[in-house]
Amino acid sequence: MTTVILLGAGNVATHLYKAFSTAENISVTQWYNRTRESIKTYANEVEITDSLDELKEADLYIMAVSDDSIEQLSKDLPFTNRLVAHTSGSVSMHALDKKNDIAVFYPLQTFSKDAEITFSEVPICIEAIDKDHRKFLKTLANDLGCKSYKISTSQRQSLHLAAVFVNNFTNQLYRIGHEICESKSVEFEILKPLIQETAKKVQEMSPYRAQTGPARRNDKKTIKRQLKLIENEEHKTIYEVLTDSIKRTHGFPPTPKRRVKKDQE
Amino acid sequence: MTTVILLGAGNVATHLYKAFSTAENISVTQWYNRTRESIKTYANEVEITDSLDELKEADLYIMAVSDDSIEQLSKDLPFTNRLVAHTSGSVSMHALDKKNDIAVFYPLQTFSKDAEITFSEVPICIEAIDKDHRKFLKTLANDLGCKSYKISTSQRQSLHLAAVFVNNFTNQLYRIGHEICESKSVEFEILKPLIQETAKKVQEMSPYRAQTGPARRNDKKTIKRQLKLIENEEHKTIYEVLTDSIKRTHGFPPTPKRRVKKDQE
Ligand SMILES: NC(=O)c1ccc[n+]([C@@H]2O[C@H](COP(=O)([O-])OP(=O)(O)OC[C@H]3O[C@@H](n4cnc5c(N)ncnc54)[C@H](OP(=O)(O)O)[C@@H]3O)[C@@H](O)[C@H]2O)c1
Ligand SMILES: NC(=O)c1ccc[n+]([C@@H]2O[C@H](COP(=O)([O-])OP(=O)(O)OC[C@H]3O[C@@H](n4cnc5c(N)ncnc54)[C@H](OP(=O)(O)O)[C@@H]3O)[C@@H](O)[C@H]2O)c1
Repeated sequence: MTTVILLGAGNVATHLYKAFSTAENISVTQWYNRTRESIKTYANEVEITDSLDELKEADLYIMAVSDDSIEQLSKDLPFTNRLVAHTSGSVSMHALDKKNDIAVFYPLQTFSKDAEITFSEVPICIEAIDKDHRKFLKTLANDLGCKSYKISTSQRQSLHLAAVFVNNFTNQLYRIGHEICESKSVEFEILKPLIQETAKKVQEMSPYRAQTGPARRNDKKTIKRQLKLIENEEHKTIYEVLTDSIKRTHGFPPTPKRRVKKDQE
Repeated sequence: MTTVILLGAGNVATHLYKAFSTAENISVTQWYNRTRESIKTYANEVEITDSLDELKEADLYIMAVSDDSIEQLSKDLPFTNRLVAHTSGSVSMHALDKKNDIAVFYPLQTFSKDAEITFSEVPICIEAIDKDHRKFLKTLANDLGCKSYKISTSQRQSLHLAAVFVNNFTNQLYRIGHEICESKSVEFEILKPLIQETAKKVQEMSPYRAQTGPARRNDKKTIKRQLKLIENEEHKTIYEVLTDSIKRTHGFPPTPKRRVKKDQE
């Protein structure tokens, strides 16, 4: 039985707690948070604490706390030579205090407390100095039913950047779709199946091959007409920038620039 | 029994044919394409033809042909006063010759011949001059198990524009994620569950509420660090433009502009 102690009680810690408690070979022996409030509902399933001094011994300490607090909290840990991992996509492993063995256990997914997640479908990116620790964390990921990947700091940071593109920026394109619909009193509902199909397509086909639409065909007439249709200047800029990006990817020259207004020159 | 004749044999026509042939109250009585080649495999299920003069009588003629050929093909139809609909998101209904009753039957989804689609999940946007024709097309959509929406030309054109944002542009963001991964020898595979979850989230929550990440939090440190990490100038521009868009949506001031190189001023 692998023993784990969780630190933090946010989105990631909560999902990790649920996944760990249903896994057969893993036991969460303690759950720490600086404030008891957010974990007190779990007090009859697991030992909870808000004091670092009360922390017991365990095979692994997972710090799922805000990026900015990782460094200080790892300094404040009142023990040494134990395995401590953070869960961040962007913080260096070396932000963790060297008095303990350090590692990263980064679940690449978007978590919010109320949204259900099939945890076994979450890819786990693993980093550790020691080979045995990597193996240990890989087994832990396996026990959760997850695929795991050995990743360097620089690879993890690039993955996190790529995640911003495919998650946050994509979500903003959904938002713009929503705004365009609203401005014409059309239900955003109508776009939802397309949104799902677009994401589904690249599960089996490369995004390069999956591309369609006016920019992919270099259909100048449609591009020009759509640009005229867009009322919002910001949406227009995004349309141009992404149209040019698609064109470049597929070997077409960029669209000639719009005339810039005098006072912007 | 509603009788339908299909014109065209591309992505949309092929999926419509399959959906119509499995629907109980609909019969495809003929399938026309300018070249027999692409439909000849269906010759033992349905009457096929490459001659407009051979077209029979039917309750509805659906022209699922390229946008540019809709106008001419509708002129070439050798009959009058029958109901003719095109399937385009962007072509005006009035591109169809007035000698027949005209309509639009626009399935808002991305189709390719080999990708399976659950047709009953495709929203159908309907336009017609005559109220009875709208009702007829609504019933047809219902018979396919689809939701349908009454839409004006201007609404349809805005929907098509919004579809470019949530489909083509989103797919390009996936492509950029792919490029970032490749440049660091990381498997794009790792991002796929996140891509699906991002699309799934907005099925139940507005994109406004679903937003997370550095721009949403106005986390200047992370934004600056990620901008430094991006090697490709085009990706940098897209990062800036979409970060500013998210910030504006959520009430933060835009990021100060990068210094433009002398020769670009
Ligand atoms: N959310 C995601 O989608 C996601 C995905 C992958 C990785 N991550 C990473 O996982 C980590 C946690 O993210 P999250 O979304 O779970 O964050 P969160 O929901 O904001 O929760 C943050 C947790 O950190 C605690 N905390 C904050 N400052 C602290 C301090 N100075 N000392 C001790 N504890 C402190 C908070 O305690 P209180 O309860 O007392 O406020 C809270 O329990 C971050 O490194 C993040 O980058 C997040
Ligand atoms: N694909 C989508 O995701 C999608 C989604 C919604 C709506 N639409 C709309 O549906 C319509 C068809 O799109 P699609 O993707 O199915 O197109 P497609 O796969 O390119 O097929 C076009 C069809 O039109 C025929 N055609 C082209 N020029 C013609 C001409 N001058 N005369 C007669 N037939 C001609 C072609 O005949 P050949 O077989 O002989 O080449 C082919 O059968 C378009 O209006 C499009 O905007 C497409």
